Amino acid sequence: MVGAPLAGGSSTPELTAAVSDAGGLGFIAAGYKTVDEVRREIEDVRARTRRPFGVNVFFPTQLAADEAAVADYTVRLAREAERYGVACGEASWSDDGWEGKLELVTRERPAVMSFTFGCPARSIVAGLQASGIAVWCTVTGPADARIAAAAGVDALVVQGSEAGGHQGSFDDTDAAPVGLLALLQLVRAATDLPLVAAGGIATGEGVAGVITAGASAAQIGSCLMLTPEAGTSAPHRAAFAGGAPTALTRAFSGRRARGIVNRFMRDHDAAAPRAYPQVHYLTAPLRAAARAAADADGINLWAGQAYSLAEALPAAELVARWGAEARAALQH
Amino acid sequence: MVGAPLAGGSSTPELTAAVSDAGGLGFIAAGYKTVDEVRREIEDVRARTRRPFGVNVFFPTQLAADEAAVADYTVRLAREAERYGVACGEASWSDDGWEGKLELVTRERPAVMSFTFGCPARSIVAGLQASGIAVWCTVTGPADARIAAAAGVDALVVQGSEAGGHQGSFDDTDAAPVGLLALLQLVRAATDLPLVAAGGIATGEGVAGVITAGASAAQIGSCLMLTPEAGTSAPHRAAFAGGAPTALTRAFSGRRARGIVNRFMRDHDAAAPRAYPQVHYLTAPLRAAARAAADADGINLWAGQAYSLAEALPAAELVARWGAEARAALQH
Repeated sequence: MVGAPLAGGSSTPELTAAVSDAGGLGFIAAGYKTVDEVRREIEDVRARTRRPFGVNVFFPTQLAADEAAVADYTVRLAREAERYGVACGEASWSDDGWEGKLELVTRERPAVMSFTFGCPARSIVAGLQASGIAVWCTVTGPADARIAAAAGVDALVVQGSEAGGHQGSFDDTDAAPVGLLALLQLVRAATDLPLVAAGGIATGEGVAGVITAGASAAQIGSCLMLTPEAGTSAPHRAAFAGGAPTALTRAFSGRRARGIVNRFMRDHDAAAPRAYPQVHYLTAPLRAAARAAADADGINLWAGQAYSLAEALPAAELVARWGAEARAALQH
Repeated sequence: MVGAPLAGGSSTPELTAAVSDAGGLGFIAAGYKTVDEVRREIEDVRARTRRPFGVNVFFPTQLAADEAAVADYTVRLAREAERYGVACGEASWSDDGWEGKLELVTRERPAVMSFTFGCPARSIVAGLQASGIAVWCTVTGPADARIAAAAGVDALVVQGSEAGGHQGSFDDTDAAPVGLLALLQLVRAATDLPLVAAGGIATGEGVAGVITAGASAAQIGSCLMLTPEAGTSAPHRAAFAGGAPTALTRAFSGRRARGIVNRFMRDHDAAAPRAYPQVHYLTAPLRAAARAAADADGINLWAGQAYSLAEALPAAELVARWGAEARAALQH
């Protein structure tokens, strides 16, 4: 069982350590953090557990963003800024501290380093492996899988359309995202690499299902977000009880991500440009203000399609239960 | 293993009988056919096999259709009519011979009768069961599942977002369809009924995966469409080799269905109204003409998300192989 890296607040050193201590593989979500913050998180996790863990980093991509569309979206969000009493952020590009995080992780040598939004060059992959770090890459289709396999990664995180948060695709197109079970079969036809299945896994039967379908492990995200160890905000936790559907949207970050449908998504989804991470930085102060005001209608409520099965129990208890249920289902 | 009912041409008595003879459960797709045609198909299947089979019928729903939007769409399709040298069909509502098909099936007593687009009243379900017919209902979410369970059906066909052809939802909304693995877990949390998993299942490992995840059987559709027994048109078969992505669209029928993206879908998807079966009848002559002209760009190329794994082998060979692969995966 892998504890998904939940960038944006849900992943904490407590959660990472709890998953690893329970026999899973916890992940530190390095995305959106400074190198120093990630270093401190690694130290914090190491102080809490001696078990292996992983670090997830965003691969920097520079997708062609329509600057005029970003400018239009900025104007559109003026009334949101007014509503929340803050200024919008600056719609700039950033590599999210790529070089620094790569150096940090190479030095710190966690068991696994995983990448989202793309795959580094073969030389970088080999360098990490030479430091004793297993390299995983998130893929959402067979084309991504072939690129990552050619780069020499050790395993693929196969992310189905069900997954909460950002689709980790190398490109950011409007193509229909593929469901996890179909995706596992398509990726398996493209590569023999070990696969970690991600997206909509919420029960031990779900874990067992992906293992039987050919995955080596199941990654769980949304169903860890209500644990006491998670940093999920109170309004985000409350929204998990609401039962609203989820949808993919570029409204919050400029890149497709799945969250619970709320006012902000309804109002701005159709107008949101394909511009990541520009829109992420643009909306960041709005989302922070909405979070502070406990206004779930202004927050990016990331959640996978099975989020309603999440329970507010300690991570260790959930990991142990999913393991026992999965073993029972596999012996059926 | 269940052979999906493939309305619109792919299902034939040969395919139904071949799947049943190979130890699966073949289905007759009664949708869009007259009562007499269905009666002859039942006779034909019975002449070919003594094994059990099922009959799938569309439950008639009268969704509110915007008549002005249908009129606009009719005007829009005038150039398609010109292109293919035929007149558009009449955008009318129909119950697809509901009463007659219900009487026929009750009299003919196949092993299973399954419903798509809704669930009949408890009294109808009980009547079929009293005739020795097991009743299944297609669902795409826990709400549909609860309604069908309350109507007393024997099993649920759980159709994931990956599935080709129409989404069998009771309502036809724009809500994001749910991936199969997430859906199995959500439906299982709503009911203890036996579940038949459908959508994107293309390999024995896929079959084994859904069984382990709690389904009693796997239903395969797209991966039977290239078999010699299937009635899939030549241009539709050829499109399966093209590797284009699939998408959900209302362009062909007025109701969301997944097919391989082609010119017709690209040109009309955004303008297509929610109006089933009106748009189905409106475009029927266009689609027939495109099929006759072997123009894959004008055909509804129904296909699930794993369609690229389909093989042009006899159905018996595929069913036997999937069974053997699934047993191997389950013993792993």
